[in-house]
Amino acid sequence: MERNSLAGAACPVARSVSLIGEWGSLLILREAFGGTTRFDDFQRSLGISRNLLALRLKKLVEGGVLERRPVAADAKRHEYRLTRMGEDLLPMMVAMRQWGDRWLFTPETVPADMIDTSTGSQVAPLEVRSLAGRTLSRGDIRLRSRKAGAGTAGKQA
Amino acid sequence: MERNSLAGAACPVARSVSLIGEWGSLLILREAFGGTTRFDDFQRSLGISRNLLALRLKKLVEGGVLERRPVAADAKRHEYRLTRMGEDLLPMMVAMRQWGDRWLFTPETVPADMIDTSTGSQVAPLEVRSLAGRTLSRGDIRLRSRKAGAGTAGKQA
Repeated sequence: MERNSLAGAACPVARSVSLIGEWGSLLILREAFGGTTRFDDFQRSLGISRNLLALRLKKLVEGGVLERRPVAADAKRHEYRLTRMGEDLLPMMVAMRQWGDRWLFTPETVPADMIDTSTGSQVAPLEVRSLAGRTLSRGDIRLRSRKAGAGTAGKQA
Repeated sequence: MERNSLAGAACPVARSVSLIGEWGSLLILREAFGGTTRFDDFQRSLGISRNLLALRLKKLVEGGVLERRPVAADAKRHEYRLTRMGEDLLPMMVAMRQWGDRWLFTPETVPADMIDTSTGSQVAPLEVRSLAGRTLSRGDIRLRSRKAGAGTAGKQA
């Protein structure tokens, strides 16, 4: 399985995995979602080697998920900020956290709740729904190819 | 960054990444969500080495995401099925596909739509909401520690 071949794969999941699915990248994104912007802070939080961190950050910047920019107009130090594309990973990050809470912790050991800062209301469990509002499970979903005449690509989420 | 240390990490995202975030595992799960159950079919779809595939499958089985069972009562062949824990990854898989569709394809090149088989209605874009129904972006969310007296763990999704 060639990593390079995945980036051009015809499947959105494969392309996403190629860009952000590397071990380490998801944790960098978790930190970025938590507000971390500085190289040294990523390094401290993740305990990852500086070389590997630099590689991962570079890939996320080149992929458009993070933006690297000077801290101030004339500064030599840079910070890493989520781009709109990066911010749009929110549902995935939330899905991953909620799944981990449910399946990899007990109710007593879940470390934290995600809450809406302005109201204190908890973040609702993500649900997959149709545009018509029906709650969907895996068996309800199939892929419909957009290629004219290509028919369906089989049941797949 | 030690992989083993991650599995016991106090963060649900880190634990999830440790279990399913490996390069390859997410693609195996994509195939499983698409209905693939046989070793040879995973192998054919992913073009991954048999050794690596066996390792990844073993980890997913041990982690409780997949179940390995004989095809029939007396069969030597086995199949791999998503457990309830595995099926519960649906929002994450959908989030990843939708993000890939939006950011790694153009509208003309998106290969397929996810649709509700019974109604033909498309799967709606996942939205993060509070229990009170408010649509949330990253800046709206913070983590509230469950440890008594621990206060908040900072803004983080």
